Amino acid sequence: MREPVTGGDSGTEPGPLLIRDQGSFAIGGSVIKNSGMFDPKKRTPDGQTLHGDHAYVQYQIPAHARKLPLVFLHGTGQFSKCWGSTPDGREGFQNIFLRRRFPVYLIDQPRRGGAGRSTKPVTIPATPDDQYWFNLFRLGIWPDFFPGVLFPRDAESLDQYFRQMTPDTGPFDRGVIVNAVVALFDRIGPGVLVTHSQGGGLGWIMAIRNRNIRAVVSYEPGSGFVFPEGEVPQPMPSSGGTLEAAGVPLQDFLQLTKIPIVLYYGDYIPEHPSQNPGQDIWRVRLAMARLWVKAVNGKGGHARLVLLPEIGIRGNTHFPFSDLNNTGIAGLLSGFLAESGLDGD
Amino acid sequence: MREPVTGGDSGTEPGPLLIRDQGSFAIGGSVIKNSGMFDPKKRTPDGQTLHGDHAYVQYQIPAHARKLPLVFLHGTGQFSKCWGSTPDGREGFQNIFLRRRFPVYLIDQPRRGGAGRSTKPVTIPATPDDQYWFNLFRLGIWPDFFPGVLFPRDAESLDQYFRQMTPDTGPFDRGVIVNAVVALFDRIGPGVLVTHSQGGGLGWIMAIRNRNIRAVVSYEPGSGFVFPEGEVPQPMPSSGGTLEAAGVPLQDFLQLTKIPIVLYYGDYIPEHPSQNPGQDIWRVRLAMARLWVKAVNGKGGHARLVLLPEIGIRGNTHFPFSDLNNTGIAGLLSGFLAESGLDGD
Repeated sequence: MREPVTGGDSGTEPGPLLIRDQGSFAIGGSVIKNSGMFDPKKRTPDGQTLHGDHAYVQYQIPAHARKLPLVFLHGTGQFSKCWGSTPDGREGFQNIFLRRRFPVYLIDQPRRGGAGRSTKPVTIPATPDDQYWFNLFRLGIWPDFFPGVLFPRDAESLDQYFRQMTPDTGPFDRGVIVNAVVALFDRIGPGVLVTHSQGGGLGWIMAIRNRNIRAVVSYEPGSGFVFPEGEVPQPMPSSGGTLEAAGVPLQDFLQLTKIPIVLYYGDYIPEHPSQNPGQDIWRVRLAMARLWVKAVNGKGGHARLVLLPEIGIRGNTHFPFSDLNNTGIAGLLSGFLAESGLDGD
Repeated sequence: MREPVTGGDSGTEPGPLLIRDQGSFAIGGSVIKNSGMFDPKKRTPDGQTLHGDHAYVQYQIPAHARKLPLVFLHGTGQFSKCWGSTPDGREGFQNIFLRRRFPVYLIDQPRRGGAGRSTKPVTIPATPDDQYWFNLFRLGIWPDFFPGVLFPRDAESLDQYFRQMTPDTGPFDRGVIVNAVVALFDRIGPGVLVTHSQGGGLGWIMAIRNRNIRAVVSYEPGSGFVFPEGEVPQPMPSSGGTLEAAGVPLQDFLQLTKIPIVLYYGDYIPEHPSQNPGQDIWRVRLAMARLWVKAVNGKGGHARLVLLPEIGIRGNTHFPFSDLNNTGIAGLLSGFLAESGLDGD
């Protein structure tokens, strides 16, 4: 698993992509219907329906594809784009793993991006918050980048990075998102779920709900760790808020012991409490993740946590899969998939 | 141009797509900045920025690509998806024209889909309106399909069709959208702009503003026709509202005479006033489009209008490019591009 990873490799591999099939579809969701009778001559909602709360999925199947697809779920404020071109235009995990012959599914979760139709209303306030995310995603402490951080330093890349955020188009609802991704795995069959950040916490529930999820790869999972009822750790305070875990029935939790799971965390996560909330919230998330891996493995599971600096990889932000060393980070994932027997043809 | 087009052809062409490059980026947009000083310890908007109002662009460049890309702009309530897989899962114009070796750029206009960040707030009401769109997009008069309409009749296809709509995530602003697409053509150089519906009206302004737009192909352009000042036709009333054209300086209008332009309209557009607004608004749009083509050509231009039923192609909705005969419709476009010398290598 420890193939050499260097900072700043280019991410470019030569040669065209050979795509056997590509397309997109909506999955999951619900329909609401207004009372009354629809009258084509009046533009009122009477008797009309709204189809919403689905996920939007774009897929590409390479020629000579491996058997199990990689299914990518973004995190807070993001959408499928975060797995595509990086902010500085290098290839992201979408292209990298297509080149490695994996079918790739990219999700826009319900009420985000191309899955915009929501059955519930929302107001989007357009509140400036770029600097908050700069800090929380551990590029640095605004306006300074962390020393050695593997994020490009040109203004255009940061501009692109900020613009890959997109708001919720309805109230954030964990159940709605989980239902849509569970429906996706019902449709496509067995695969590997790759999550990021907030998607990580949702991913544990998805894996409990759908046995077609044959492994979970989670980049910097945030809130939403689940433990067996009665074994939930104490809340963990940080300068950015308190992290709480949740309980699930033991029988549900045990499903997480039956599949290989790997969690990756990047750099700049402090060991001791920090007054910078953008870093300190990750301190408690990493601590909770360590307890969680212990809990899974204590029940006979196969989870592991890779803190990248502990294996000599320094400089990663909250987005290792698009950082400047993302081909190396992809190499780690390839290694995990191979070791776990998930990359067969 | 009149290659045989039959209803219900499968749209499937064999063999893998050979993609030399694919990716995505944000283009255009602006930045707003709040007053005050950013404090990393407080989650307030003080001193923070918001990057918004960009378009989101996904592109694919096939191997052995032709020189000029096709740049696709959706219409009202839609996003890039409308050019992708059709509601019944056949290949849309994205794949069809990649197979025909055109570079393909798919736009999500500012404040729509993946281009969700808006510098201005909005409330999304989640108002049921599926039946309104069913009628306006000329699938039929709800709940009945038009006889012979080239839309699949299974429930799942209609479900997918409704779910490919997505709301505005900020106030609709023509200038913001035009600016972003003008910036796109600054970045990518010469190409052909392919618009749909509301995008059509924006496309005329884009073509005036950016000479890299070497041709415009417009499927069912709706509101937004521009005429030379002093030559603007009278408003046209319909049972779905009154259509008004706008004036632009003659010098601007003349830019539209310098490029080949083609407009396509589908079936079920009544010749005489109809009490069904979903059809009647297209009667006046078609009438205005005919005046517009006359105006362009009267100043020396090269515009043409193809009413599909007039060349024997019946059954098309407001979305000819995803209807059941979309490979035939693509054939018409290929013919136009060839005749206009726009498909060279």
